[in-house]
Amino acid sequence: MKIGFVGLGNMGGPMVHNLLKAGHALSVYDLNAAAVATAVAAGATQASSLRELVAGRDVIITMLPASAHVRAVYLGADGVLAHVAPGVTLIDSSTIDPDTVKQVAAAAAQHGNALVDAPVSGGTGGAQAGTLTFMVGASAAVFEQVKPVLAGMGKNIVHCGDTGTGQVAKICNNLLLGISMIGVAEAMSLGAALGIEPKVLAGIINTSTGRCWSSDSYNPFPGIVETAPASRGYSGGFGTDLMLKDLGLATEAAKQVKQPVLLGALAQQLYQLLSQHGSGGLDFSAIIGLYRKQAD
Amino acid sequence: MKIGFVGLGNMGGPMVHNLLKAGHALSVYDLNAAAVATAVAAGATQASSLRELVAGRDVIITMLPASAHVRAVYLGADGVLAHVAPGVTLIDSSTIDPDTVKQVAAAAAQHGNALVDAPVSGGTGGAQAGTLTFMVGASAAVFEQVKPVLAGMGKNIVHCGDTGTGQVAKICNNLLLGISMIGVAEAMSLGAALGIEPKVLAGIINTSTGRCWSSDSYNPFPGIVETAPASRGYSGGFGTDLMLKDLGLATEAAKQVKQPVLLGALAQQLYQLLSQHGSGGLDFSAIIGLYRKQAD
Amino acid sequence: MKIGFVGLGNMGGPMVHNLLKAGHALSVYDLNAAAVATAVAAGATQASSLRELVAGRDVIITMLPASAHVRAVYLGADGVLAHVAPGVTLIDSSTIDPDTVKQVAAAAAQHGNALVDAPVSGGTGGAQAGTLTFMVGASAAVFEQVKPVLAGMGKNIVHCGDTGTGQVAKICNNLLLGISMIGVAEAMSLGAALGIEPKVLAGIINTSTGRCWSSDSYNPFPGIVETAPASRGYSGGFGTDLMLKDLGLATEAAKQVKQPVLLGALAQQLYQLLSQHGSGGLDFSAIIGLYRKQAD
Amino acid sequence: MKIGFVGLGNMGGPMVHNLLKAGHALSVYDLNAAAVATAVAAGATQASSLRELVAGRDVIITMLPASAHVRAVYLGADGVLAHVAPGVTLIDSSTIDPDTVKQVAAAAAQHGNALVDAPVSGGTGGAQAGTLTFMVGASAAVFEQVKPVLAGMGKNIVHCGDTGTGQVAKICNNLLLGISMIGVAEAMSLGAALGIEPKVLAGIINTSTGRCWSSDSYNPFPGIVETAPASRGYSGGFGTDLMLKDLGLATEAAKQVKQPVLLGALAQQLYQLLSQHGSGGLDFSAIIGLYRKQAD
Repeated sequence: MKIGFVGLGNMGGPMVHNLLKAGHALSVYDLNAAAVATAVAAGATQASSLRELVAGRDVIITMLPASAHVRAVYLGADGVLAHVAPGVTLIDSSTIDPDTVKQVAAAAAQHGNALVDAPVSGGTGGAQAGTLTFMVGASAAVFEQVKPVLAGMGKNIVHCGDTGTGQVAKICNNLLLGISMIGVAEAMSLGAALGIEPKVLAGIINTSTGRCWSSDSYNPFPGIVETAPASRGYSGGFGTDLMLKDLGLATEAAKQVKQPVLLGALAQQLYQLLSQHGSGGLDFSAIIGLYRKQAD
Repeated sequence: MKIGFVGLGNMGGPMVHNLLKAGHALSVYDLNAAAVATAVAAGATQASSLRELVAGRDVIITMLPASAHVRAVYLGADGVLAHVAPGVTLIDSSTIDPDTVKQVAAAAAQHGNALVDAPVSGGTGGAQAGTLTFMVGASAAVFEQVKPVLAGMGKNIVHCGDTGTGQVAKICNNLLLGISMIGVAEAMSLGAALGIEPKVLAGIINTSTGRCWSSDSYNPFPGIVETAPASRGYSGGFGTDLMLKDLGLATEAAKQVKQPVLLGALAQQLYQLLSQHGSGGLDFSAIIGLYRKQAD
Repeated sequence: MKIGFVGLGNMGGPMVHNLLKAGHALSVYDLNAAAVATAVAAGATQASSLRELVAGRDVIITMLPASAHVRAVYLGADGVLAHVAPGVTLIDSSTIDPDTVKQVAAAAAQHGNALVDAPVSGGTGGAQAGTLTFMVGASAAVFEQVKPVLAGMGKNIVHCGDTGTGQVAKICNNLLLGISMIGVAEAMSLGAALGIEPKVLAGIINTSTGRCWSSDSYNPFPGIVETAPASRGYSGGFGTDLMLKDLGLATEAAKQVKQPVLLGALAQQLYQLLSQHGSGGLDFSAIIGLYRKQAD
Repeated sequence: MKIGFVGLGNMGGPMVHNLLKAGHALSVYDLNAAAVATAVAAGATQASSLRELVAGRDVIITMLPASAHVRAVYLGADGVLAHVAPGVTLIDSSTIDPDTVKQVAAAAAQHGNALVDAPVSGGTGGAQAGTLTFMVGASAAVFEQVKPVLAGMGKNIVHCGDTGTGQVAKICNNLLLGISMIGVAEAMSLGAALGIEPKVLAGIINTSTGRCWSSDSYNPFPGIVETAPASRGYSGGFGTDLMLKDLGLATEAAKQVKQPVLLGALAQQLYQLLSQHGSGGLDFSAIIGLYRKQAD
């Protein structure tokens, strides 16, 4: 397939490499010259504008930081929709608000293009290993069409429903994740303060009704899960500021539909407190630091 | 073994039957004559006082509603410690605050008796089926001694550490459970309001980082897990008022050690709101009703 | 003064009348023909476009529902800045986010116009009576210049600092107001549930350290303050959805600067719950209904 | 009047002095010999037991740290009710839970004594100056009888209703106070982060709908109210651990009647966080430190 790819950051860069490895022809666009050079060295073609990028492509993929960038790239005066041929499929893998997806998709539909929202989970590790999960919002027909492309970058390609539902799936999952992690932090901290051995407590939780990914695979208490960020000073992993961004999307989407999310909003504020105190770059499981008098 | 058993309620009653089936000799005590009659019909001997109950027993087991009852039964003027022989092991399976456990255990130790806290999870279903999980606080030696007795009533007999840690394990797990359930309720309600099919969303969460028992085994959204209370009008299961009791124990224990539990305290208030509105007898997953404009 | 006024809603309409009464010459613009007709009947001149509106004016005042309208009116291709003469002072009395104020003010400054943010408090009653409070963000010199104009519509004209601080003052005050009202609702509901006479409790609070406007002037418990919405079924007053809008601005502004607002975010969710349940049109003190088993 | 006084701590000590100044005859009891010596030096008579204390007294007053002490002093085997003559009025000025008041009052009534709950506000400063506020739970007749005695120690003697309502009034007021203070802390911190001058913001709040005692008389932001603890490093004032105690009483009483107090419970956890971090001895307005990146 001839693919145009916009956005060569920590996620987009490795995704491009995996698409090249899968045998696709790629033109790429990014304002960061070094990132472009890396992609070109791996076999991609540099496009000097979005107009150039979209020329002769079957599929356009975007991987951008936030809604404003997605709007600019697709809807800008010199953006994708101004130049792309009708019929070309557009895949946005950015994590953004469902409202923006719907607006861009409506503009794309008017122009004769299907827009697919396909946000990912799995982080930079998954992007590099090609094991990302894609949560895909698209009609059934378009989903079947994009699935092989996405399979070049990920392991689980999940159809969530029509356009927009990919974002909904991602922000709902991460809303729950953000809450669960704090729940585990509170349970582990309370247990430690009351004198139970943390490893024993985690073992009980993991085989009981408190069982969850945040406890059994990513426990925030140091020394429980060897591969978790908690066991290496909370470096790497899923940054607190990224969790903040996703919780911001969740509470904002909830506001649009007047849906209360009480624990979610409080969780957002707690990560905000952590970030304000200078730990926005640490893995989000560092939230347990708020609950403990001193480091372990 | 010769066992004295105090407290023949919804949990204690079936536990007695399973102990009888396991071949133990039981004397029982309860103020409820009907409950005693049922136990006697199954082979137990009625004791007309705690003095009579403890006579000649190897082990005493108590299964009582709250701390006040435990204090009364053990420490009362005519209670267990006033009459039991030194060396007899005392097992309290009630769910109560760790402080009370420590106080009663200290009194028991002075009298020459080891007190074991062994609260359970698994509910009335687990009590009847003999598949309860016991979270046991005891020295290693005493744990080995009581394990065979508990095995007559349960499937998982977990050693949590010294006396008191059984209660700590239980309240920490249930603190997390109470939070997770509301997290799932918020995520599912938000997803539904934003237009994703609830079954699809649950499927994604269950294979992603939001994965937890409250979602994959006990989802509060109707129709997701067939065996869950949500699929039968929130009847049966683990009552909201029981969850409230456990969250009350958790926040109270947290207060004693000045350990903040922010989400936990908010979760407690939300179940309290549910109970105030008349749903204290429904399963605790009914909390999702607070988040949805109308029933499904 | 020759004033151009955009936005003749529930607030803008009466403000125009008061400016006319104060002797100013007004041209007005609104998409609602009926609102324009009312203003014209009172002595204003109708402008059929923003271009026409700004012609020959000394001051432009805007009173619009939200940030998007303010951006459109000032920055639109055919908007105020496209046609207004340099030197004309621009006053925006809408309640919007401080970020938008700064962006519009920067564009205005480039064009040679000072933009003043002057959000109000006092509601439609204050707009009609000409007793509004204006919270004004402007340089000292510009503040002196606009003060007499604002004095035609309000009683307290408060200088909050440079451009943008008017909005900051308003959203910080309303953040506190939204929290205080729920605090009073919780205290009054708890007192009533514990058996103290509500009037007696309010009297004690009002002369003690719990004293606040939400208790002494606007008590949410029915029958305490005769003139409060609580004493007339929560009609009139400051609508729950307007409080929600302001709390949304506060938490959004807090997010921009990574400032945690824990109680504020929880308060927002509680009003969102109230609004979801169909009471968004009631006065925000109706939040007490969430806390009481039955109406009084 | 012949008064027996139990509890000569930071509050009780100065209260005794004021009663002596008012011309009453006092016998006093406390385990702290130094405190007793001070009272005796001021004219009180030492009682070596509660039996001795109550002999020949018209009124007994107790000022104790917590419910357990009140139970022990009144209900203990050698306590007040074991020895006091029927008809003597009992006044408990401790701040405790309403449930304990009712239980002790019931026991007192059986013995022929009226028990009055009369918790105070005003702190050690008010105790010394004799300007305390007494919130009194008593029948109308008993209130008239104890009013002159209380007037010797305080300025405002408020009748709250029947026995128990004095405690209800105090915990409801302090519940609101604990919430308001955090509300002010959030509003002031947000304003400062968004660039408004804190004094200007406080001035606006104090004349607007956010107006409250926590802002106009006790502002937590340094330098706003000269006499407030915030302007002297949060020393003196009303300690965080005392606020924690009162919020604990409020949430516990709420639990008894299944009354949700969502902001109240979150406020309690935030003060608990502050106390855990070592600031339990600072004035409760130090909570603002949680919200600010650096001290001012």
